[in-house]
Amino acid sequence: MDKVLFIKMVLGAWNIRIAQLDKLFGELPDEQLQKEIAPGKNTGVYILGHLTAINNRMIPLLNLGNELHPGLFKTFVETPEKEIVATPTVKELRQAWKDINKELDALFERMQPDEWFERHNSISPEDFAKEPHRNKLNVVITRTCHLDYHAGQLVLLK
Amino acid sequence: MDKVLFIKMVLGAWNIRIAQLDKLFGELPDEQLQKEIAPGKNTGVYILGHLTAINNRMIPLLNLGNELHPGLFKTFVETPEKEIVATPTVKELRQAWKDINKELDALFERMQPDEWFERHNSISPEDFAKEPHRNKLNVVITRTCHLDYHAGQLVLLK
Repeated sequence: MDKVLFIKMVLGAWNIRIAQLDKLFGELPDEQLQKEIAPGKNTGVYILGHLTAINNRMIPLLNLGNELHPGLFKTFVETPEKEIVATPTVKELRQAWKDINKELDALFERMQPDEWFERHNSISPEDFAKEPHRNKLNVVITRTCHLDYHAGQLVLLK
Repeated sequence: MDKVLFIKMVLGAWNIRIAQLDKLFGELPDEQLQKEIAPGKNTGVYILGHLTAINNRMIPLLNLGNELHPGLFKTFVETPEKEIVATPTVKELRQAWKDINKELDALFERMQPDEWFERHNSISPEDFAKEPHRNKLNVVITRTCHLDYHAGQLVLLK
C-alpha cells in the first residue's frame, strides 16, 4: 500500500509537468520556439530537443527497452547548440516529444510496484546495495524536476 | 522501512537543489543578481525573494510553526515585481534565504516518518481522505521542482 501511494505521488508530479509542457509547447508557434530564451542562450527548439532526448534516454535507463529515437541524446545533450550540424525539424521534434512521452506512459503503466524500487541502469549493483534510494522511482523524481528547470526557461518565450 | 527510504529519496532531492542554489547565489554578485533574467522579465533578486518566500511559507503549510519573515509572501509571491513598493535589501534576502532553509532543515529533522504522510494545511480533511497522496511529503516534491524551475532561470545570469 505504501509503495503504491509513493508511486502515485511521483508519477502524479511527472504527469502534471508533462501536461504543463504539452500546453506550453502548444502555445509557442515555431517562430517563437526558434528564438533564444535570453540573449546568447539556447533556443526553445534546442530545449524541446533536449527534454525529448532526456525522456527518450529514460527508456533504457529504467531497463524498459530501447530508445525510440537513438540520435537525440548525442545531438541535444552531448552537443552544445552552437555546434550542432544537423537537427530534426521542429515538426519532427514536436512529434518525437509526444511519441516518447506516450511510450513512457505505456511502459510505466505496465510496471509492477516493486519494480520501481529496483536498481536503474546507471548505478552498479554494489553501489545500489549501499544506496537503495537510488532506484527507478528516484529517476522519475529527478527527471520531473529537470522538466521544471527547463519549463522555467521556456516560459520566457511566451 | 519503505517510508524511511521514500522520505530519504524526497529529502535527498530537496537538499541537492538547496545546495545547488546556495552555490549559484554565491556565484552571482549583487550587481549580477539585480539584472533581469531576460529582457523585461523578473530580476534575480526578485527570484531570490520569491524562492525564500515560498520556502518560508512551507513552515505553516506543513504545520511546523510560523513563518520566520511574515512579509515575504505578500511582496514576492502576491505582488508582481513591477508593482513592489518596498523590498528588503539583497543582503537581507540572502540572509533570509539561508535562515529559512536552515530552519526547515531543523524542522524536517525532527519529523517522524508517519508525519510526512499526514495532511498539510492547504487540503481539507474531506479531500485528504479521498486523496492521501496529497500529503506533507508531496509538498516537498512540488517545492523541489519549484526550486529547479527558477534555478533554470537564475542560471541565465551567470
